[in-house]
Amino acid sequence: MRAAIFRQGDLVVDDMPEPQPGEGQVVVKTLACGICGSDLHTFHHAEHMVEMSKRSGANSSMLMDLKKDVVFGHEFCAEILDHGPGTQKTLKPGTRVCSMPIAVVDNSPKTVGYSNDVPGGYGEQMVLNEMLLLEVPNGLATDHAALTEPMAVGWHAIEKAQLTDDDIPLVIGCGPVGLAVIAGLKIKGVGPIIAADFSPARRKLAEIMGADIVIDPSESSPYTRWTDEATPEGYDPEDLMTMMGLGPQLRPGVIFECVGVPGLIHQTMEGAPKGARIVVVGVCMERDHIEPFFGIAKELNLQFVLGYTPEEFALTLHHLAEGKIDATPLITGKVGVDEVKAAFEALASPDKHAKILVEPWR
Amino acid sequence: MRAAIFRQGDLVVDDMPEPQPGEGQVVVKTLACGICGSDLHTFHHAEHMVEMSKRSGANSSMLMDLKKDVVFGHEFCAEILDHGPGTQKTLKPGTRVCSMPIAVVDNSPKTVGYSNDVPGGYGEQMVLNEMLLLEVPNGLATDHAALTEPMAVGWHAIEKAQLTDDDIPLVIGCGPVGLAVIAGLKIKGVGPIIAADFSPARRKLAEIMGADIVIDPSESSPYTRWTDEATPEGYDPEDLMTMMGLGPQLRPGVIFECVGVPGLIHQTMEGAPKGARIVVVGVCMERDHIEPFFGIAKELNLQFVLGYTPEEFALTLHHLAEGKIDATPLITGKVGVDEVKAAFEALASPDKHAKILVEPWR
Repeated sequence: MRAAIFRQGDLVVDDMPEPQPGEGQVVVKTLACGICGSDLHTFHHAEHMVEMSKRSGANSSMLMDLKKDVVFGHEFCAEILDHGPGTQKTLKPGTRVCSMPIAVVDNSPKTVGYSNDVPGGYGEQMVLNEMLLLEVPNGLATDHAALTEPMAVGWHAIEKAQLTDDDIPLVIGCGPVGLAVIAGLKIKGVGPIIAADFSPARRKLAEIMGADIVIDPSESSPYTRWTDEATPEGYDPEDLMTMMGLGPQLRPGVIFECVGVPGLIHQTMEGAPKGARIVVVGVCMERDHIEPFFGIAKELNLQFVLGYTPEEFALTLHHLAEGKIDATPLITGKVGVDEVKAAFEALASPDKHAKILVEPWR
Repeated sequence: MRAAIFRQGDLVVDDMPEPQPGEGQVVVKTLACGICGSDLHTFHHAEHMVEMSKRSGANSSMLMDLKKDVVFGHEFCAEILDHGPGTQKTLKPGTRVCSMPIAVVDNSPKTVGYSNDVPGGYGEQMVLNEMLLLEVPNGLATDHAALTEPMAVGWHAIEKAQLTDDDIPLVIGCGPVGLAVIAGLKIKGVGPIIAADFSPARRKLAEIMGADIVIDPSESSPYTRWTDEATPEGYDPEDLMTMMGLGPQLRPGVIFECVGVPGLIHQTMEGAPKGARIVVVGVCMERDHIEPFFGIAKELNLQFVLGYTPEEFALTLHHLAEGKIDATPLITGKVGVDEVKAAFEALASPDKHAKILVEPWR
């Protein structure tokens, strides 16, 4: 089969053997697969990423060998082609499916798209575990179903934030992850949703996805605006009762850090109001600095998040199918395997693209 | 009155005017006042501390002017001498009292011991707000009552951790703050309580205060020991169901970072098990580095904490009075105002001292 292959640090298009289904697995045809910021990061910093995964205690079976080929792609919608041994065959060939990007090979779980053994959605075919398949509800476009994975990341971040009705959310960064968070916040019904991004195109998308207030940080501080929204009538921060937590308080703040570059966590901690929860959704793979004192003085809470649960993933597919999230504006491009490398370059410009889908059969 | 005064970056002993009670205040005689790590830090890095407080949004009335005198001391037990205007006089002169170190001057709250206007417990007299006074229960030694404040810091950290019965706590650093956390964990009844410190003397204190397992990090990893304790029968981290959160899991982990020097938060994040909550109780006043990826890969939660609520402060005094905390082993020295500077130096050696009390009338 043809695939865009991460080989020796480069992205090349080549033929490779079709993946063979093991026990409990099915072979699927990749219909569409989103390009994720993590793919871009792995492309540029693969060795560091493997090293960090190792140090953070990842299972050895989950680590890539960078001397061997890897086919990226973990945000996919696919069609069942064939069933492997030991399958129930409940879903017939031709059924469109989504799946969490996990596959089991020789009893070891692997990440689809970040494994030498399990090619991801930048190739024409994949093998997936039957027990993880979710049928795409009738009427949901393939392109939108392919967004289940990134949208589930946003939903998971919101669930980890343990929102209350009184929370005012602030979303820093309106790339695909930030937009997924905004879409989820809209479903939760909290607000006003304040979102900030330097890019006019992304601010526009943030509005479309449900942000009530969008801020250009080069013009004004999102934290100041947050405080304006959160301040109740007659609030006096210098009042003794208020300082002791017994008088009127600002509404609680939840900040979603969706940028993931060095300095952002620090900036968020410096800007955050007292008692804020900061949900770190952006994936900063580099060493970073903070001033712990800001955390201490304001009793901040930092919740780092990753992935989603099986339930959150399934629920997100239903949110898309029920029209609770309209993903149309997020899809800004489609490419075949030959254009993946160019798409990686195009995604560096935040004003042009949100999500580019790879269609390997294109 | 005589006091150890922080003046132009040095600690000097001098006479100074007795503080005058304002509306709702009482004059008290300082009986005993603990030397806190924050006092040491302020002594060495006062300008940085004021700058950081400013940047973290502290009320302007709370900031020290370092060109003027400051009398440190916020961990005190005192005796009522006289009542100022507008007081209820419920507690008679001669009554021993504790108080949160907050005083109101001209309607502005000040921190007792970190203010140009409100001298702390390194001086013979203080003014305190009557409404914040707590009578020391009969039978509780003055020395022990003076430990209410640091013990309340530990109790607050535990409350912020929102412990469950299943949690296994790990205390990193067994100085006064770590020991206060251990004492509080013992009251909560969670365990086994694992505590780690390089100092044999502090490990001994940790045991006395209630740690079930004490670790010398130069000999073995407290995180490995934590994992041993937290692993249920038949646990397999590489099992797919376990990885998806559906199979057997490690018991939850709560790590109390009670050291507060650069690198410690990073170290804790690298060592922490998946899903751990890290409560940052140690006060690191310097710029620090982290590797966000460890937080992300393990979905860690960092809760920074500071101080305590009025309820937590009052409850801690009762814990001491009821013998739920025996503070005797913590008190390793007593000095008069003349010896405060020498005591600051002695406290740099962790194997000699835990808490030194200043007795200004000594």
